[in-house]
Amino acid sequence: MHGKEIPAFEDLFLATKQHYVDQGMDVRYETTVASIDVNAKTVTLEDGTVDRYDKLILATGFNYADPGVPGTDLSGLYYVKNIRQAMEWDKVLDTVKSAVVCESTPLGLEMVTALAHRGIKTHLVDPAPWAMSMATDPDIIKPVEDSWIEMGAELHFNTTLKGFVGDGKLRAVATSAGEIEADLAVVATEKTANTALASAAGIKLGMSGGIIVDSHLRTSAPDVFAAGDCIEAVHGVSKVPIQGLSGAHAYAQGKAAGTNAGGGDREYRAVYVPWGMVAGKWMIGGVSFSETLATALGMDFVVGNGQGISRARYYPGVKPVKVKLLAEPKDLRLIGAQMVGGEGIKERADFLAMAVRKGITLHDLASMENVYSPPIGALAEPIATAAQDGLNNAGA
Amino acid sequence: MHGKEIPAFEDLFLATKQHYVDQGMDVRYETTVASIDVNAKTVTLEDGTVDRYDKLILATGFNYADPGVPGTDLSGLYYVKNIRQAMEWDKVLDTVKSAVVCESTPLGLEMVTALAHRGIKTHLVDPAPWAMSMATDPDIIKPVEDSWIEMGAELHFNTTLKGFVGDGKLRAVATSAGEIEADLAVVATEKTANTALASAAGIKLGMSGGIIVDSHLRTSAPDVFAAGDCIEAVHGVSKVPIQGLSGAHAYAQGKAAGTNAGGGDREYRAVYVPWGMVAGKWMIGGVSFSETLATALGMDFVVGNGQGISRARYYPGVKPVKVKLLAEPKDLRLIGAQMVGGEGIKERADFLAMAVRKGITLHDLASMENVYSPPIGALAEPIATAAQDGLNNAGA
Repeated sequence: MHGKEIPAFEDLFLATKQHYVDQGMDVRYETTVASIDVNAKTVTLEDGTVDRYDKLILATGFNYADPGVPGTDLSGLYYVKNIRQAMEWDKVLDTVKSAVVCESTPLGLEMVTALAHRGIKTHLVDPAPWAMSMATDPDIIKPVEDSWIEMGAELHFNTTLKGFVGDGKLRAVATSAGEIEADLAVVATEKTANTALASAAGIKLGMSGGIIVDSHLRTSAPDVFAAGDCIEAVHGVSKVPIQGLSGAHAYAQGKAAGTNAGGGDREYRAVYVPWGMVAGKWMIGGVSFSETLATALGMDFVVGNGQGISRARYYPGVKPVKVKLLAEPKDLRLIGAQMVGGEGIKERADFLAMAVRKGITLHDLASMENVYSPPIGALAEPIATAAQDGLNNAGA
Repeated sequence: MHGKEIPAFEDLFLATKQHYVDQGMDVRYETTVASIDVNAKTVTLEDGTVDRYDKLILATGFNYADPGVPGTDLSGLYYVKNIRQAMEWDKVLDTVKSAVVCESTPLGLEMVTALAHRGIKTHLVDPAPWAMSMATDPDIIKPVEDSWIEMGAELHFNTTLKGFVGDGKLRAVATSAGEIEADLAVVATEKTANTALASAAGIKLGMSGGIIVDSHLRTSAPDVFAAGDCIEAVHGVSKVPIQGLSGAHAYAQGKAAGTNAGGGDREYRAVYVPWGMVAGKWMIGGVSFSETLATALGMDFVVGNGQGISRARYYPGVKPVKVKLLAEPKDLRLIGAQMVGGEGIKERADFLAMAVRKGITLHDLASMENVYSPPIGALAEPIATAAQDGLNNAGA
């Protein structure tokens, strides 16, 4: 949105307060909860008011990890978090000439793309050797990095943030590779679960720092549920609890927690985490593990690569689509995927997330049927091509 | 392509003859096979030449069903079939003012769209009550029909073709609802398997009229394989052999038949037939059975509908996506789907074809994870919304 693609920020709100009030809800904006007593089943507000609950749902969200460097008190630092704050910042952006985005998290990638698109001189500073290295492999992210450079961005990898420099107002960002002049710094560090209230109430937190919930989003406290960025969820492949998922996960968790708090019975399952976004001039996406992450975790896998196209070769608007698949070496079940291309990345990521969840194999994908229609689909589907390559590599 | 979207027809060829010759193939264009002797393992050409074969692959394709009306000998009738013929017709189209498309097959839909897009006064004549009624339901095709009307096309449903009228050259198309003046008629009747050679050679044909092949594309004759529109393939849900699939099916069958003829071992499976196309101002697509067809076949099913969007609600380029799912009523396994929308139809059809093949249920789809990223994916995925609706309808 900071790329000026959206006409008005007001379009972003799902519904007004009045809409919820009309449905019989007691909505209190700008009201801070100070503490929860899970034994008395009460919530105490900052003004001292005490409210009883029958069921409680925690949706306390996330905080950006503290960058842990000097100068975070300067004006000119931007944490992308809530729409109202973003509305104010958008006005500021009209006066900004140069910006530094700190860390290439998903948000960082979106911000580099949006700021460069807006014509602001944009720098990306990241300690890793390539962008979003926790989820991507270098071959997948390379076209994105190339396109950022085409858009005028400067990429500083293997570079550590040292501090924010200025006198009241930001003037430069200090890094292990020197100072970068900037009017604005976007702090796009990892998301950490905001669990201050839950933790103070004695609700159990997990290894990832998120609130532990069961299959029905119940916390360790009776009649207290939790949903969204404040919880951790079990990864379906590694079985390890993870934290910091997407808005679509928060939405699905919120619906399930609300249903269950209201007396329903909706299970929330292990996650496989399809992801996708526009980055530079491309779309990237995937599901579960990259080659880099699977290797770091000591997993065995076979890889299949497929280079394809989004429409018939001769059709206007045709764009490349590259697919990489990772499979368990014994039975060739899919365990991860990554893509970069010009069209259809979100839909393929959704498909492949279901494929990982349901134990679909490279054999299945290599023989998948696909729509061939010149304006919308090519003769060969790159997912099938990648799966065939994977079978060859596995000697299957 | 007749809509002038493609700069040049020459772009359509995959490779030149020389390309194949360079790979050691003996390529003979404009050479007609007169007969096959499956005992002597020979092929006799029209000029009397006899060639021996070790392995033979039949790829004789399809013919359009004879419309069975007077006047098919007039000039001005167009059968869309081969690229070279299409190149000649394209010049003719520059002089055409009005055209009639006979039957709303997939090709018929593409031709109505292309001719209307090109500014030609276009009529569609079809005996059924709505377009492509063998694969679609009225609620799915309605937006397409509306958009054709917006584009200036005239739709004549419940209307039977009676003949082509003219003196040497087409002047009008006669129908059960009267004559329609036209310079051009596109004969887009059903495809029928071209099996003249196979049949004369004593190779077995199936109920659908296509050549019967086994799981390795072997015909009833030793060392004779067949692939493409001349064969029939077993439908994975109904287990009934069907004929007249897509170019993507022909391509996959050709690769499998070629591999097996060369001594390899590649299985070709039952088909679920994802389909999709641009029709009018929309994309439509689906897999397996529509509500109409499933009802006609006497099948029991539950339906789920989902109306969604292709990107975030506030993002430029956002388009509606409507999904309808059919599931087996007992275990809620998916048995069919249909979609109409503005983006991502081909990729969703591919996904849902795999879902039908692998026995994925409405429960699975209702809890699917989806990519949420405003420029490429909405918070709620319409496939999941439709599955949730299906669960509600099933009381599950």
